[in-house]
Amino acid sequence: MGVEQKPSAVMIGAGNVATHLAMALHQAGYPVIQVYSRTREAAGELAGRLGAEAVTNLSLLDKEAGIYLVSLKDDAFLSLLPEIATHRSQALFLHTAGSVPVNVWKGYARHYGVLYPLQTFSKRRPVDFTEIPLFIEASSAEDEEILRTLALSLSEKVYPISSEQRKSLHLAAVFACNFTNRMYGLAADVLATCDLPFEILLPLIDETARKVHMLSPGEAQTGPAVRYDTTIIGKHLDMLAGEPQLQEIYRLLSENIYRSKQ
Amino acid sequence: MGVEQKPSAVMIGAGNVATHLAMALHQAGYPVIQVYSRTREAAGELAGRLGAEAVTNLSLLDKEAGIYLVSLKDDAFLSLLPEIATHRSQALFLHTAGSVPVNVWKGYARHYGVLYPLQTFSKRRPVDFTEIPLFIEASSAEDEEILRTLALSLSEKVYPISSEQRKSLHLAAVFACNFTNRMYGLAADVLATCDLPFEILLPLIDETARKVHMLSPGEAQTGPAVRYDTTIIGKHLDMLAGEPQLQEIYRLLSENIYRSKQ
Repeated sequence: MGVEQKPSAVMIGAGNVATHLAMALHQAGYPVIQVYSRTREAAGELAGRLGAEAVTNLSLLDKEAGIYLVSLKDDAFLSLLPEIATHRSQALFLHTAGSVPVNVWKGYARHYGVLYPLQTFSKRRPVDFTEIPLFIEASSAEDEEILRTLALSLSEKVYPISSEQRKSLHLAAVFACNFTNRMYGLAADVLATCDLPFEILLPLIDETARKVHMLSPGEAQTGPAVRYDTTIIGKHLDMLAGEPQLQEIYRLLSENIYRSKQ
Repeated sequence: MGVEQKPSAVMIGAGNVATHLAMALHQAGYPVIQVYSRTREAAGELAGRLGAEAVTNLSLLDKEAGIYLVSLKDDAFLSLLPEIATHRSQALFLHTAGSVPVNVWKGYARHYGVLYPLQTFSKRRPVDFTEIPLFIEASSAEDEEILRTLALSLSEKVYPISSEQRKSLHLAAVFACNFTNRMYGLAADVLATCDLPFEILLPLIDETARKVHMLSPGEAQTGPAVRYDTTIIGKHLDMLAGEPQLQEIYRLLSENIYRSKQ
């Protein structure tokens, strides 16, 4: 895999991760020649941005690409795997799933691996791909070298990890990103009930994120649950009385924080 | 209250909020003449940084200060209130509690209000006070003007809100900050089980916070719970099998996210 002549890539999937990854590959000089998606619309939109061909039928995948990059929902990936991979090919087959082991390719492809970008992608929001940590794993030391070269052309932060570690990383990311964002959403819901705009929380949200660059989350923890301030906690639970699920979330998290500080 | 000659202040409390607020007052040119805390150690530490007198007995509070600023736990504040406030005084009595209404001062003080800084403070971490939103409320229009002048000398972001709104804001802040930080902590715990450092999550944490500057939390929401991906959710619940409380937190938040997207 020469540095000057980059291998061509086929993107299988056109969701958030696929879109950002394909654009980053494109910008790094990899010709993305095809985009597959189940729907013509999704395949067409991403393919259009890349100057690639849109396909909605896996039998039409180009057979000569150097890299096949799969970014589908786990279930779709596993059911389509036999149609995607070819043991005869010299190409590198990669998936981007946090919780699917690298060995899922075994028996289907000869050269394979995982390229897991740890980031939250929304189609409407551009990201600086060079700062996104990429976690790699491959079927052999040679394939890992090829994958590392590919990954380093996209980001400065490339880490080899095992499938087991990646699974834990994925779980950790759900807490640190998906559940964190939901906390923002619940805060926004509370403010909406008293006509306050969400924006007033942004300095607090930013500082909460910045703090854990310097302190561990345990050291950074503040709030009524740390000292189990039953007066404040009681008031808050009363305010959530109309929403039993929220009340339960508040109660569980407060207990969990208090316990973590003992 | 002239702009040149700033009134002297007494700080009642020496915890995280009291420390940062007293330092900000000091830097803004208000002479902080006394610091009260229940313990000699806490009072002495903060007083030392301010060139103030440390007191551990409320009967020793200076009677001539212009501002008395109370930042204690709610319960301690309410029980000490009669010893702190004096109806005879022309001074402005302020508290910093999110969930205590302004009228708690009524009958105890003539001029009173609330100065609620919306931020997470840890003693070990300096903050730029000028960027912290300050929410104010006072006993009269005149007192609100005095309080506004005081607040504007500490921060560029000063908003008058009602006690009811402040209560909701406090609850929102618990979600946006305290519970968010606990999500970081749970993520750190997960990573520790597989020898991965917490630092690898920082770009994800930062982007999660940055995203809600541009998108609403609802628009920014990603992750397996959005599409209720039972395969991934099932794997994650299995990984948390040894920790029933964490499992319940994961389950509840995933359900809550899914429901919010319907």
